[in-house]
Amino acid sequence: MNEREKEHHVVIIGGGFGGLNAAKALKRKPVRVTLLDKRNFHLFQPLLYQVATGGLSPGDIAYPLRSALASAPNIEVLAAEVVDILPDERRIILSDGQLDYDSLIVATGVTHHYFGHEVWANTAPGLKTVEEALDMRRKILLAFEAAERETDPAQQRAWLNFVVVGGGPTGVELAGAIAGLAKETMVGEFRHIDPRDAQIVLLEGTERVLNTFPEELSVKAAKALVARGVEVRTRTLLTDINDGHILLKNIADGEETRLRARTILWAAGTKASPMGLTLAERTGAALDRMGRVVVEPDLSVPGQPNLFVIGDLAHYVHQTGDPLPGVAQVAMQQGRYAARVILARLQDKKLPPFHYKDKGTMAVIGRNAAVADLGSLHLHGVLAWLIWLFVHINFLIGFDNKLLVLIQWAWSYFTRKRGARLITGEDPYPLV
Amino acid sequence: MNEREKEHHVVIIGGGFGGLNAAKALKRKPVRVTLLDKRNFHLFQPLLYQVATGGLSPGDIAYPLRSALASAPNIEVLAAEVVDILPDERRIILSDGQLDYDSLIVATGVTHHYFGHEVWANTAPGLKTVEEALDMRRKILLAFEAAERETDPAQQRAWLNFVVVGGGPTGVELAGAIAGLAKETMVGEFRHIDPRDAQIVLLEGTERVLNTFPEELSVKAAKALVARGVEVRTRTLLTDINDGHILLKNIADGEETRLRARTILWAAGTKASPMGLTLAERTGAALDRMGRVVVEPDLSVPGQPNLFVIGDLAHYVHQTGDPLPGVAQVAMQQGRYAARVILARLQDKKLPPFHYKDKGTMAVIGRNAAVADLGSLHLHGVLAWLIWLFVHINFLIGFDNKLLVLIQWAWSYFTRKRGARLITGEDPYPLV
Repeated sequence: MNEREKEHHVVIIGGGFGGLNAAKALKRKPVRVTLLDKRNFHLFQPLLYQVATGGLSPGDIAYPLRSALASAPNIEVLAAEVVDILPDERRIILSDGQLDYDSLIVATGVTHHYFGHEVWANTAPGLKTVEEALDMRRKILLAFEAAERETDPAQQRAWLNFVVVGGGPTGVELAGAIAGLAKETMVGEFRHIDPRDAQIVLLEGTERVLNTFPEELSVKAAKALVARGVEVRTRTLLTDINDGHILLKNIADGEETRLRARTILWAAGTKASPMGLTLAERTGAALDRMGRVVVEPDLSVPGQPNLFVIGDLAHYVHQTGDPLPGVAQVAMQQGRYAARVILARLQDKKLPPFHYKDKGTMAVIGRNAAVADLGSLHLHGVLAWLIWLFVHINFLIGFDNKLLVLIQWAWSYFTRKRGARLITGEDPYPLV
Repeated sequence: MNEREKEHHVVIIGGGFGGLNAAKALKRKPVRVTLLDKRNFHLFQPLLYQVATGGLSPGDIAYPLRSALASAPNIEVLAAEVVDILPDERRIILSDGQLDYDSLIVATGVTHHYFGHEVWANTAPGLKTVEEALDMRRKILLAFEAAERETDPAQQRAWLNFVVVGGGPTGVELAGAIAGLAKETMVGEFRHIDPRDAQIVLLEGTERVLNTFPEELSVKAAKALVARGVEVRTRTLLTDINDGHILLKNIADGEETRLRARTILWAAGTKASPMGLTLAERTGAALDRMGRVVVEPDLSVPGQPNLFVIGDLAHYVHQTGDPLPGVAQVAMQQGRYAARVILARLQDKKLPPFHYKDKGTMAVIGRNAAVADLGSLHLHGVLAWLIWLFVHINFLIGFDNKLLVLIQWAWSYFTRKRGARLITGEDPYPLV
């Protein structure tokens, strides 16, 4: 491998949308690539909410990184954990080794932001990893089992109240799916409760759900949620979680309410992965409020032309003045761009600044109901829903996954059932 | 529900092959049925080894019990844990309540038998539950990742040696699947190891694998395993597991060998679930060496005509003199029989003793290779393999599961890939 070792070594940390697309753009190029991830698979996060509500299995939306990159002889995949970066030495430190690089692309994404209430992380799971989705699935399904066994009506009510915190796409999709689970899938399966009695409450701190979408689509989404049995409470913040109930505050009039609820699900905010802090400490880079690294027009860290930050971890303002959102499309385009910058440099060329092509954004509420903002075109209802299905199948990695998801969606559509409703993990008994 | 409450109440503990089939046989009959299970799903155990080797997801072989029984108004499902049985009071005690019965069917199955080496349970996982299969999957996949990172050749060898303990159908199928994973699926995916260098060793204490099958089929199975890269060591017992190596003993000549291996998988023996001991204590019933309850010709416990034990937990000798094996077909037939005995009694009728119709037994080694003992007909090779596929798809519960498994098998057949190769669970770093 001596020839190879003289080649420019690109190290990519993270195998999500950003890292994987950067690696793919370097396939068979005159560079040596090492992609590291703590996990051995690429995860299609936009569909995690379906794992959390028992509609899909984790394996349906994940693809082994080695398989995705096996056909590229110049790329290797390592399962490892990065604990530090030494930019002056162009070296990264792993939990069990180290690696030198010529160019480094950091694509480690985000984790959950509990806005100072870190203790809520124990009771209110978020939705960024497979384990979190399975934990959420377990909590949701166990709530119905507990309600079925509960004889005290007040406690039963607490088990049948579901609170989703955060009215962005994740929260909207999750709330809509839980409504589908309760009011369609599980009908007739219980003998002491009617799952249709479940109340799903979606909390949003600003004045409308999907507040990054055009206002008319926010209105349509809220209507669709209500029609499917979700109670939408805007201008409402969660202020406390206690055993069996929560406290809400309406920020318009300051009114506080107490709500009995045992299942609280977090879709309210993200902050940068710890790698953001590491980069700031090691390079002096500026971080935004979420901990994301402020990058140059070519996605590199100021003063570190060979160190790129892409995807959810990057704060990029050179296009509109507002930072680009942490969505899959941005990460994918940035990954490809960073790869092209590195290749161009090997030929002493320079590329124009990164420019994000916004192809639109979507969110689904349930069967036949989605909203899609395609720039000049705003769609809702069945047409938006079909486009949503098509786009997600298209971007799933792995032909087998596309087929499996398509089939389960078709089956779910006609039967209203969800086929992956397993309560797994440690035995949770007693329930009540 | 007053009418219903006067009806004969049948309680079934366990939603596996035995319990679920007993419940289904009581659908819409003049009895009230409560089926309890710690889990909310029926698990198709024969395919767990495919979950353990990344070929299928747990959701593909599991079906929610509520869905399977929702259409029967006289049956309810409870997620609960049974901690005691009081036969004289016809009552079962739950971890959080109690339940009275008129007839009780105990179908709680078996757990793993480590033959006195209980400490091995931590290092050498078995294959009876979803969690165990996922733990096994994790261990197997991590072994390859660790080998890829390991620089010491001796340690690398230890990571690439896989030991399967037990040459019954479970062990044979598991060993064959790991060989398929290493020598087909993962080829080309690593850069520092060749996964084909993995050595898979199958240990069997008696003189042949599949020793409950006709001898010619044992020979065919062993040949097929060897052809696929599995080393079969019969008359060999595992005597010790240490950090990174194991001790083997050849019982023919007493020779002891030491083998470097980090991944040891247990398919060597089962013993009754703790419910067997509870029943023995409470009823004075006899237990066999495996802890199974010796039952009457009508599957009831001696002295307790309303208390039935079926499936893997039952020791039934009234047919051939040898106890029936703990296989799915026996459990299914016994479940249906016990239900019919209960219904017959309501009409003051008596049924002849339980008679097991042995429709044959099969084991698969890999693509195009299985063995099938269908009584007078002994098959091997492609034909046996096709029959194996057909029978398993047929007995899977859930049309969606049948379709998903069929598709993944077809895809796997043509691509030699396995689509559920996820390493999930807690981060295991450092690996080496």
